[in-house]
Amino acid sequence: MGAAILTDLLTEILIPVAAVVGIGFSLIQWGLVSRVKLSPERQGLPAGSNDKNDYSDYLIEEEEGLNDHNVVVKCAEIQSAISEGATSFLFTEYQYVGIFMVAFAILVFLFLGSVEGFSTKSQPCTYSKDKYCKPALANAIFSTVSFLLGAITSLVSGFLGMKIATYANARTTLEARKGVGKAFITAFRSGAVMGFLLAANGLLVLYIAINLFKLYYGDDWEGLFEAITGYGLGGSSMALFGRVGGGIYTKAADVGADLVGKVERNIPEDDPRNPAVIADNVGDNVGDIAGMGSDLFGSYAESSCAALVVASISSFGINHDLTGMCYPLLISSMGIIVCLITTLFATDFFEIKAVKDIEPALKRQLIISTSLMTVGIAIISLIALPSTFTIFNFGVQKQVANWQLFFCVAIGLWAGLVIGFVTEYFTSNAYSPVQDVADACRTGAATNVIFGLALGYKSVIIPIFAIAVSIFVSFSLAAMYGIAVAALGMLSTIATGLAIDAYGPISDNAGGIAEMAGMSHRIRERTDALDAAGNTTAAIGKGFAIGSAALVSLALFGAFVSRAAISTVDVLTPKVFIGLIVGAMLPYWFSAMTMKSVGSAALKMVEEVRRQFNTIPGLMEGTVKPDYATCVKISTDASIKEMIPPGALVMLTPLIVGTFFGVETLSGVLAGALVSGVQIAISASNTGGAWDNAKKYIEAGASDHARTLGPKGSDPHKAAVIGDTIGDPLKDTSGPSLNILIKLMAVESLVFAPFFAAHGGLLFKIF
Amino acid sequence: MGAAILTDLLTEILIPVAAVVGIGFSLIQWGLVSRVKLSPERQGLPAGSNDKNDYSDYLIEEEEGLNDHNVVVKCAEIQSAISEGATSFLFTEYQYVGIFMVAFAILVFLFLGSVEGFSTKSQPCTYSKDKYCKPALANAIFSTVSFLLGAITSLVSGFLGMKIATYANARTTLEARKGVGKAFITAFRSGAVMGFLLAANGLLVLYIAINLFKLYYGDDWEGLFEAITGYGLGGSSMALFGRVGGGIYTKAADVGADLVGKVERNIPEDDPRNPAVIADNVGDNVGDIAGMGSDLFGSYAESSCAALVVASISSFGINHDLTGMCYPLLISSMGIIVCLITTLFATDFFEIKAVKDIEPALKRQLIISTSLMTVGIAIISLIALPSTFTIFNFGVQKQVANWQLFFCVAIGLWAGLVIGFVTEYFTSNAYSPVQDVADACRTGAATNVIFGLALGYKSVIIPIFAIAVSIFVSFSLAAMYGIAVAALGMLSTIATGLAIDAYGPISDNAGGIAEMAGMSHRIRERTDALDAAGNTTAAIGKGFAIGSAALVSLALFGAFVSRAAISTVDVLTPKVFIGLIVGAMLPYWFSAMTMKSVGSAALKMVEEVRRQFNTIPGLMEGTVKPDYATCVKISTDASIKEMIPPGALVMLTPLIVGTFFGVETLSGVLAGALVSGVQIAISASNTGGAWDNAKKYIEAGASDHARTLGPKGSDPHKAAVIGDTIGDPLKDTSGPSLNILIKLMAVESLVFAPFFAAHGGLLFKIF
Repeated sequence: MGAAILTDLLTEILIPVAAVVGIGFSLIQWGLVSRVKLSPERQGLPAGSNDKNDYSDYLIEEEEGLNDHNVVVKCAEIQSAISEGATSFLFTEYQYVGIFMVAFAILVFLFLGSVEGFSTKSQPCTYSKDKYCKPALANAIFSTVSFLLGAITSLVSGFLGMKIATYANARTTLEARKGVGKAFITAFRSGAVMGFLLAANGLLVLYIAINLFKLYYGDDWEGLFEAITGYGLGGSSMALFGRVGGGIYTKAADVGADLVGKVERNIPEDDPRNPAVIADNVGDNVGDIAGMGSDLFGSYAESSCAALVVASISSFGINHDLTGMCYPLLISSMGIIVCLITTLFATDFFEIKAVKDIEPALKRQLIISTSLMTVGIAIISLIALPSTFTIFNFGVQKQVANWQLFFCVAIGLWAGLVIGFVTEYFTSNAYSPVQDVADACRTGAATNVIFGLALGYKSVIIPIFAIAVSIFVSFSLAAMYGIAVAALGMLSTIATGLAIDAYGPISDNAGGIAEMAGMSHRIRERTDALDAAGNTTAAIGKGFAIGSAALVSLALFGAFVSRAAISTVDVLTPKVFIGLIVGAMLPYWFSAMTMKSVGSAALKMVEEVRRQFNTIPGLMEGTVKPDYATCVKISTDASIKEMIPPGALVMLTPLIVGTFFGVETLSGVLAGALVSGVQIAISASNTGGAWDNAKKYIEAGASDHARTLGPKGSDPHKAAVIGDTIGDPLKDTSGPSLNILIKLMAVESLVFAPFFAAHGGLLFKIF
Repeated sequence: MGAAILTDLLTEILIPVAAVVGIGFSLIQWGLVSRVKLSPERQGLPAGSNDKNDYSDYLIEEEEGLNDHNVVVKCAEIQSAISEGATSFLFTEYQYVGIFMVAFAILVFLFLGSVEGFSTKSQPCTYSKDKYCKPALANAIFSTVSFLLGAITSLVSGFLGMKIATYANARTTLEARKGVGKAFITAFRSGAVMGFLLAANGLLVLYIAINLFKLYYGDDWEGLFEAITGYGLGGSSMALFGRVGGGIYTKAADVGADLVGKVERNIPEDDPRNPAVIADNVGDNVGDIAGMGSDLFGSYAESSCAALVVASISSFGINHDLTGMCYPLLISSMGIIVCLITTLFATDFFEIKAVKDIEPALKRQLIISTSLMTVGIAIISLIALPSTFTIFNFGVQKQVANWQLFFCVAIGLWAGLVIGFVTEYFTSNAYSPVQDVADACRTGAATNVIFGLALGYKSVIIPIFAIAVSIFVSFSLAAMYGIAVAALGMLSTIATGLAIDAYGPISDNAGGIAEMAGMSHRIRERTDALDAAGNTTAAIGKGFAIGSAALVSLALFGAFVSRAAISTVDVLTPKVFIGLIVGAMLPYWFSAMTMKSVGSAALKMVEEVRRQFNTIPGLMEGTVKPDYATCVKISTDASIKEMIPPGALVMLTPLIVGTFFGVETLSGVLAGALVSGVQIAISASNTGGAWDNAKKYIEAGASDHARTLGPKGSDPHKAAVIGDTIGDPLKDTSGPSLNILIKLMAVESLVFAPFFAAHGGLLFKIF
């Protein structure tokens, strides 16, 4: 077997240290961002420091038209309006979700407790019949606790992300006056704050939970790590509501604002006269930031749980090899360190001087983090793993070598990079796909939409091959454990991924604030350039989220099958096949709900915005302020009300199918939802991203070709705006929620597996 | 076992008799349609007959503005232009497809011949090792022959359909002068000509082929029916090119014509000044008629083949029970008789008096045919089957009773009706879903598209449940044979299905001819009403095609698995899972190609139409005729060129996967493509149908709500036109081609199964 180099003690030290380093780094970044002052007095004061990316330089150029003092005051006002709106929405959302979480926690307890009739007696272990494990009741209690812990961590992650983003947006706007490089650094640093905080937080809470649970479970690692899976379920449940609720909120406001403002009234995006403009900017923070933060935290928690639960019934668990057992956590710890170094490349080692440098800088982040992480994984695999060990593989133990596990993690990591680059190719307006879509606007909105849909469909091909290759290799090398660590590999650079992902909405908000504060055209051009790059990075982030979700749910699916004690999922049995085809339908059902919700909420928003324009005299002239609060309320009410049906669909499906149709059909449902959902999710995100950037391509007019399509207000531009609006719910509501759908159903099945195995399939038992 | 009541001799007589009756009925209908004269002299002459639906009545009302003589001459001219265009395109298409078919036939021969190295020695049978079967070389030869036979029958079916449709369109227009009822009868009768001809033809050719092949094969039924599967492959290959080529042709012309004509120049649909108008009308015939005819013929041939090949290794085949063996053919024979009676309800027993009667009449057709057929199936099941028999079920023989098989067929039949009704609900503008979409046009094209996409996604739910229930019941009762006969049940009323399906494009053309001939607004209103009903029936037809395709491909998939000698397809093996996820991606890849093809071809068409409007003086004023031929050529060239890549994708995937990755991965691909493709196909068809009818809803202005959105040219109407244009490639190119994708890959895998089983999986053998 060849014991590992890393001792258990060192493992116990290294993991929390890495987490604390991550949190510390995040605080440092926050400190740097906070040096941009939102109080007018300090602005433009000379300072001693001469660092490349220091915040204290003179303004390189003065604002035209408005004096400096007014601009800063205005930015601060707008920022606080956005921040208040976002906070108030999240509190409302959390109230409703909180009730749900408590109810669901009770459900978890009752279902799992009933497996052995709430007995307090120890039972023979599932996988080692000669040993005794803690009773099902303990599993019920600890699963419930870890469920709540996951939900709270996810909630805190999303909330903190939102706080950071609303703290950073106006600061980015102000920095844009000094040049695009300064603005970029501010936005990126703020993203990094969120990235590191989330990654480190997720790791730390998981680490503490494991150690606390061990106090009770002792040597029963099988039971311990089964209970820990609740953490993933909690994280993802919260993420679901965050993504769906936030997604509906942001897109109802965005679509509503655009339809009246840009299309009917011909006023620019984010114009302060538009009553929905604050709701729109709030939406970016509650949807793209808080929702996405919860989502990626959920993926991270689930892939860790999937790996841990499989490891617990492999030689790591059987032999009580703590370091081997903690391999997934060590990978994440290494990820934090690697991302820390990577971040310095963006903030300190290089400098952004022009708009064209932004995208390469973000791309470099991906390449650097992936390359460094490959080395990191190799080190961890070498020192933390015995040279050979066994992995549980549907009833048998499969022999695996440490270098094989290295390949599993590495292939996940590199597949993520491939997905990132393909996404960039299909959604950035530097390449021909988006330019073709923009060109199709020449003949109107219809061809724009046809080309955009085709682009989205096409963009699925390579990511799916990348996922398929990762699955094949890691599955062949180390069974379901291989898949789980491949997912973890893809997510190991999550801090960097989140940083560049969060950068997008922050820049978007910064642009909005610039417009609302009445800053000059040149400032707006800079924030637009940041934002265009942000659309691409947002799409890349979604690509990562989806790719990792596919791997995670497969790993969870495998763990579920192991725990439900079925050894094959044969497509050629009616029970499985009907599950497969119905499962493949679920993403459509879910998308139908979310798309319709956005559409209906947007219609209400349109009516309100129109009403204000028609009934408030002086609004169009800019002499009277619109009633922002009503629009915020419309978005809030709509998203709270509309997030319930899709949420219920996802949360109830595994329960209903498992209870009434049993584990075989449920397996089919999970596989079907996975293979179908991943395609829709990728194509929806990329189509939406491409439309958005096709519009920006025409607006920016940076090439001869682009100029023949523009300027703003031309017929092709109007067609592009229609495409952009259609893409909004696709890329920010339906698409990204789908990866939660597939993960959440899988992790929920895993948590409830003992119940389904014991009492499931009622319908077939009756007939 | 209890022998069947029907003797083998009677079976041998009944099948061809039913086919001949079908052909005879079709000729009678043709005769009735041809009584509408396209030569001006006879029109309006008094006649003695007083039948309800006779063709010789006086014109109820005279045409305003134009005298009768001119109208008839003009209609005849336009009809011959359309007919010539369609014939010339199909000939061009068939030349290219012909070359491909010959090449593929050689491939079939080489692959299958090589299984035993072109040996001419008899081999032990696959399923009864104690008997000797004909050599693989014979299988290669006869499979090749039946492949070509299937292709030719499919080609002839499509061609005849087109001929009938282009014969009937102008006649429908002329009858519209006498009232909506007369026009409806003409269009519907013409549809029936096509429906019965295809159903009877398909049955007859299959029957003859079986009997001829039996001369060589004798008692080796296993070999005989394996060779017959080539018939399905040929039929579907031809259908693929028909659907894709025709689909690109028709939508390039339609989208191109609409974008310039309706959107830019503000001239009505089908205005003779539009240079693309002839190409548009040709397109309806080559795409919706010829393509759809080939498609449904393919489904029919494949489901028969799937049932036969499973039956041949069940007790029917083992005991050489000819009547039992021919059960699928007897079902089809009964279907022809039932549909014949059903048709009389539309043409002779009832009368259409007003526009509002049309949709109920078509709906009644579905209900009547389904109800009668249920009785028909019961009779056939009772007299043709022994009371119990065994069905091959992945290695074991499963005992089945005749009443169980009745349930299998009946559930397929009724599931078809459910799918038909759901489709109607989601695509007819009589119900709220389409009205909601129309209402969303109030806020512009973007909300129209968002609501339309949501509608399409939602419309998937019930059909999938219907399919899932059919699969579960028929699979549980009679394994894969149950699925095959369920598919056959759904297709048993194909003659009626095709009649109401073909009715749509014929009415569409009739409207086009009315517009081009300069007939009055009232005539155009009538043809529009026929056409709106036609959009719904076209969607229903597509629903049937997709539903049956799902069942058919599952049956073929099961037959493939049996023939490839694998007994489980376990999702939890890497080989299968990667197949599953890549298979689920294929429909997206395919759709990306076809959507983009339509988009690009439409752009070329737009340029040409614009060029003509800009450079031909007098065109807009109507004093000079446009150059129709160039537009026809653009559509022709585009569709021929663009049908190759998607065609290659579908045809090559099973060959490549089977040869390099082996039968397990191929099984995964088939299952993945099936469960994912069926969803996209349904949602694409219904979304497109809904948009088309939302537009028609606004145009017709039949309710208060509709009038607030109209009239033609209003902003909501413009938004509706954009939706309609986007829907065109979805509903007429991508969507309907997808069901061929899933069927064709399955039948191709089945035909090549012996090769893959013997020599496949090269890549895994090497590594």
